[in-house]
Amino acid sequence: MSTEHLLAQILAKRSFLCIGLDTDPQQLPAGLQGEEDPVFAFNKAVIDATHHLCVAYKPNTAFYEAGGSRGWASLERTIAYLNTHYPDHFTIADAKRGDIGNTSGRYARAFFEGMDFDALTVAPYMGRDSVEPFLAFEGRFVILLALTSNPGAFDFQTLPCGTEELCLRVLRQSREYSHPERLMYVVGATKASYLSKVREVVPDAFLLIPGVGAQGGSLEEVCRYGMTDGVGLLVNSSRGIIYASQGEDFAAAATKAAATLQMEMAAILKAAGL
Amino acid sequence: MSTEHLLAQILAKRSFLCIGLDTDPQQLPAGLQGEEDPVFAFNKAVIDATHHLCVAYKPNTAFYEAGGSRGWASLERTIAYLNTHYPDHFTIADAKRGDIGNTSGRYARAFFEGMDFDALTVAPYMGRDSVEPFLAFEGRFVILLALTSNPGAFDFQTLPCGTEELCLRVLRQSREYSHPERLMYVVGATKASYLSKVREVVPDAFLLIPGVGAQGGSLEEVCRYGMTDGVGLLVNSSRGIIYASQGEDFAAAATKAAATLQMEMAAILKAAGL
Repeated sequence: MSTEHLLAQILAKRSFLCIGLDTDPQQLPAGLQGEEDPVFAFNKAVIDATHHLCVAYKPNTAFYEAGGSRGWASLERTIAYLNTHYPDHFTIADAKRGDIGNTSGRYARAFFEGMDFDALTVAPYMGRDSVEPFLAFEGRFVILLALTSNPGAFDFQTLPCGTEELCLRVLRQSREYSHPERLMYVVGATKASYLSKVREVVPDAFLLIPGVGAQGGSLEEVCRYGMTDGVGLLVNSSRGIIYASQGEDFAAAATKAAATLQMEMAAILKAAGL
Repeated sequence: MSTEHLLAQILAKRSFLCIGLDTDPQQLPAGLQGEEDPVFAFNKAVIDATHHLCVAYKPNTAFYEAGGSRGWASLERTIAYLNTHYPDHFTIADAKRGDIGNTSGRYARAFFEGMDFDALTVAPYMGRDSVEPFLAFEGRFVILLALTSNPGAFDFQTLPCGTEELCLRVLRQSREYSHPERLMYVVGATKASYLSKVREVVPDAFLLIPGVGAQGGSLEEVCRYGMTDGVGLLVNSSRGIIYASQGEDFAAAATKAAATLQMEMAAILKAAGL
């Protein structure tokens, strides 16, 4: 996948929606419990019901690891299904990995080669040599945590470190890594006012924005401060879409919730002349 | 597991050695390739050959994830084997996880309930609410990344943030989390001179020290600056032990390499009057 292809998808679909597949085995509709792999069955139904309204899918690995090797197999089936049936979608493993160089290389192989994800979220704390092994994979993207959507984001990420906050320092320093063109960043919607500062450091990079919806962030504010000429935004919604209904009509409810966001996005793109 | 029990094991075995099970499926002796689960067979042989010389085992999850759901199953078999046959050993999942609160809770369940590890390494960048869900599990430990052993540690971890370096700030702030008695910290052996500063902030906490051996850290220096009256150290060696020989004699070679470190540790404990 290239950013050009991603942008083309966004403009064609009038959507920069990413759907978070944070699928909790405990919260599945009763009708799926008889399936051989209920988590995959749920994901497949959600994907089939929403693919025309979004450009990206983002499973969070925690929800799959909680099921052990069986959970991991559900994740493998989900990404294989996406790559086979919806190859134009941008796929993100929200894994927040990062380790010493040779070990990061293993994670990179797990997610980029083993499972063929387009992108992986990576934590920046361990610095350059913990991130670059991921950037070595052509056509794959690192989405580096900059400013996350949770309350703890203010513990360290916004600490003044020298002349600027730590998260801005992370952004600035990462531009010197090899292949910065394969870097995107997580910036939480709950901190939309920070987006102007973020855009001063990374004017063109794609930002993955969690926190719209359940966590309280506003789509309109995010776009006001974060949108670029090349859109530059992937806005994620997880629970608001996949658990729009807890009943047997979950797929239809997911379509409806995704369509609501997609229509807002279409209006914003139009107003921006994109 | 309690820290008292861990300390009792250390004093009884005259060892504060942790063995890193960073098992690479590509680097296994030919004789194991016919096994149903060669990675587990290797780990089992290494564990059986070294358990009397160490107090902890630490598989790094990257090496297992690289094998997908099959690799994850090898990890499950390894921790089950440890818990069944060597329940007095302290088990650490070196996973460097961390996410928003409800998601960190999933990781905690995966590692503490699903696999029954005693401890998990956690990355601090996302702050308090990303760490506390792990601390909620009685008898389990979070080993928070403070100062890692890789070159990139100097990118952010040692940045002056206000009155002190970021890693010291991480240490200090973490003492205010709920259940700080369940916190340990990663401090790389390659930065032994930092250990005095670390001990000013966390005088008693256990430190997990990677980087002795292959990465160049010195055991003697680590102990000089980091050891407490209650030992307070777990020194990890991975490649130096598990790949002491690449041949069929790997288990015997692992025993020998572990014994060399254990004897050094015994001498250090004796000299310290412990």
